[in-house]
Amino acid sequence: MTGGEFALIEAIRARLGRHSDRVLRALGDDAAVVKVDGLVVTSVDAFVEGVHFRLATTSLRDLGHKCLAASLSDLAAVGAEPGEAYLAVGLPTSVAEREVLELIEGAEALAEDLGVTICGGDLSASHELFVAVTVTGHASSEDEIVGRDGCRSGDLVGVTGRLGGAGAGLVLLERKEHGLPVEVGARLLERQRRPRPRLEAGMALARTGVHAMIDLSDGVASDALRMAEESGVELVLELERLPLDEGVETVAEIVGMRPADLAASAGEDYELLFTASPDAHEKIETASDDAGAPVTWIGEVRRGSGVRLLDERGVQRSLRGWDHLDSRTATDRGRRGQASR
Amino acid sequence: MTGGEFALIEAIRARLGRHSDRVLRALGDDAAVVKVDGLVVTSVDAFVEGVHFRLATTSLRDLGHKCLAASLSDLAAVGAEPGEAYLAVGLPTSVAEREVLELIEGAEALAEDLGVTICGGDLSASHELFVAVTVTGHASSEDEIVGRDGCRSGDLVGVTGRLGGAGAGLVLLERKEHGLPVEVGARLLERQRRPRPRLEAGMALARTGVHAMIDLSDGVASDALRMAEESGVELVLELERLPLDEGVETVAEIVGMRPADLAASAGEDYELLFTASPDAHEKIETASDDAGAPVTWIGEVRRGSGVRLLDERGVQRSLRGWDHLDSRTATDRGRRGQASR
Repeated sequence: MTGGEFALIEAIRARLGRHSDRVLRALGDDAAVVKVDGLVVTSVDAFVEGVHFRLATTSLRDLGHKCLAASLSDLAAVGAEPGEAYLAVGLPTSVAEREVLELIEGAEALAEDLGVTICGGDLSASHELFVAVTVTGHASSEDEIVGRDGCRSGDLVGVTGRLGGAGAGLVLLERKEHGLPVEVGARLLERQRRPRPRLEAGMALARTGVHAMIDLSDGVASDALRMAEESGVELVLELERLPLDEGVETVAEIVGMRPADLAASAGEDYELLFTASPDAHEKIETASDDAGAPVTWIGEVRRGSGVRLLDERGVQRSLRGWDHLDSRTATDRGRRGQASR
Repeated sequence: MTGGEFALIEAIRARLGRHSDRVLRALGDDAAVVKVDGLVVTSVDAFVEGVHFRLATTSLRDLGHKCLAASLSDLAAVGAEPGEAYLAVGLPTSVAEREVLELIEGAEALAEDLGVTICGGDLSASHELFVAVTVTGHASSEDEIVGRDGCRSGDLVGVTGRLGGAGAGLVLLERKEHGLPVEVGARLLERQRRPRPRLEAGMALARTGVHAMIDLSDGVASDALRMAEESGVELVLELERLPLDEGVETVAEIVGMRPADLAASAGEDYELLFTASPDAHEKIETASDDAGAPVTWIGEVRRGSGVRLLDERGVQRSLRGWDHLDSRTATDRGRRGQASR
């Protein structure tokens, strides 16, 4: 490491703090060292220019925030306490060093806020910008951890917060005229650009005994299917019960979609979808209210397979969320570029 | 996740095994869960097409092996016991699903051999192939871990194994006529394509009390400089003492370099460079012999800063290793493409 790489890494180091006693070594050695007594929970996500984000509509600072937020959301989904993060960044020459530092600053601001330490990473030349994020979380025992595979027939299906905001925000990124009140539009853009992972709610729900949980990265339509597949059950969801973010109806009208369809297929809301025994519903509502993430019940688990999305007349809708590999073709053709995330 | 992505991930899962009891959950959930009592050591590395490898001269199977090997080498450098690995892969449409599986198989074969479990990862569309690897290792206490920053004035500088083989192999990738015996050429190519991380030697050296250690990924010239910078000392190395791989002299002649210069600047040997008190030299030689990685002493640590590389007449040579960010420009200009790794 000489010259440019060394100087940039020094500038990055200067921007990163240590936000827990658990971290014994970070940045500078071949590896970071973290003290653990219990379980380490690890998740890896890659974010690629033209697939997950477009530089034309994303600041590097927001990108740093969002990549880390989306990754931490996977820890929320299993109920782990957030711990450390590692960033591997591929840098095209079109990205200035100042912008790289903005990306780091955006991630660090969120990390500090959540008590997460960015412990290390890697920088490489590349032709397109990518950010691969590894996050680690912690738990004392397996009882505190929830998987995707625990749905039981007869469970209720719940979701935290409100849906469709991030998808509506994505539309607004490219469309200045929308007829929404300024503050509503701003909130939708904020949900798209700077999502907040539901870490506290995830821990609360896991400890309250939900049977299975997943975070909504690709949309209810896709993510519910994953949970159904992993659990070997059918999820039946009523679209009219989806809790919509303010402004989603207006944006859905602009793009000619039903509001619930937008909310179910757009993704990136990073709310939590889970199933639990009907007996537990009050306990769960209290726990998630306390964590600032009120629950809405949107369906139930049945024997069978797959997901049924029913409209207000009980008619099945066919919706799908985001497939990051199918988008290879889509991106190459320039289709769905707008919807890339 | 639907269709293509889901099917590919299922095929990947079917190829991966669990190689330690420590791994409680892997693949399929939002996050993997690993039981730990002590320290977790984590390192992240990104490998990018056109920067770190060229698809024209690399099979996907070898690429999978090499990316994992290079990442695990960072664990060897701190003396950690290897544990788990996570792969985030960016896939251009030019890479067939069969090739993706070969990449996974190449990584899994090495992982199984070393008792490492590939616990998770991510797949994304991209325009260029990249592989971001996160590896975790384990140690009981900080005493077992070595950093880059512990060099002390008066220390001897040692290196495991032989150098220059991977760099010479890189030359042979593009040059079929070389005048080397077949088996010598094959060994050099193997060092380039399928390096073995010095995990056992790293643990042995760390436990024998070396003061600082780093793995040779970018070449002695660069990696010694990192150790000197982190420790606030000067490393004085004698190039004639570098232990050369068989065939390096011949290849150096082909490309018009001094053999030691090739060995010091080419990198990718993944041997271990370390410093230790002169009193410890016998103990260290025994420990590394037992780990199958004999040590050569190549210099000493002095007060000061930087690295001095002396030739056989005591004249200082100016050499540099690989800078992954400077290569942005180089790659764009088509220069150094051959040397890309």
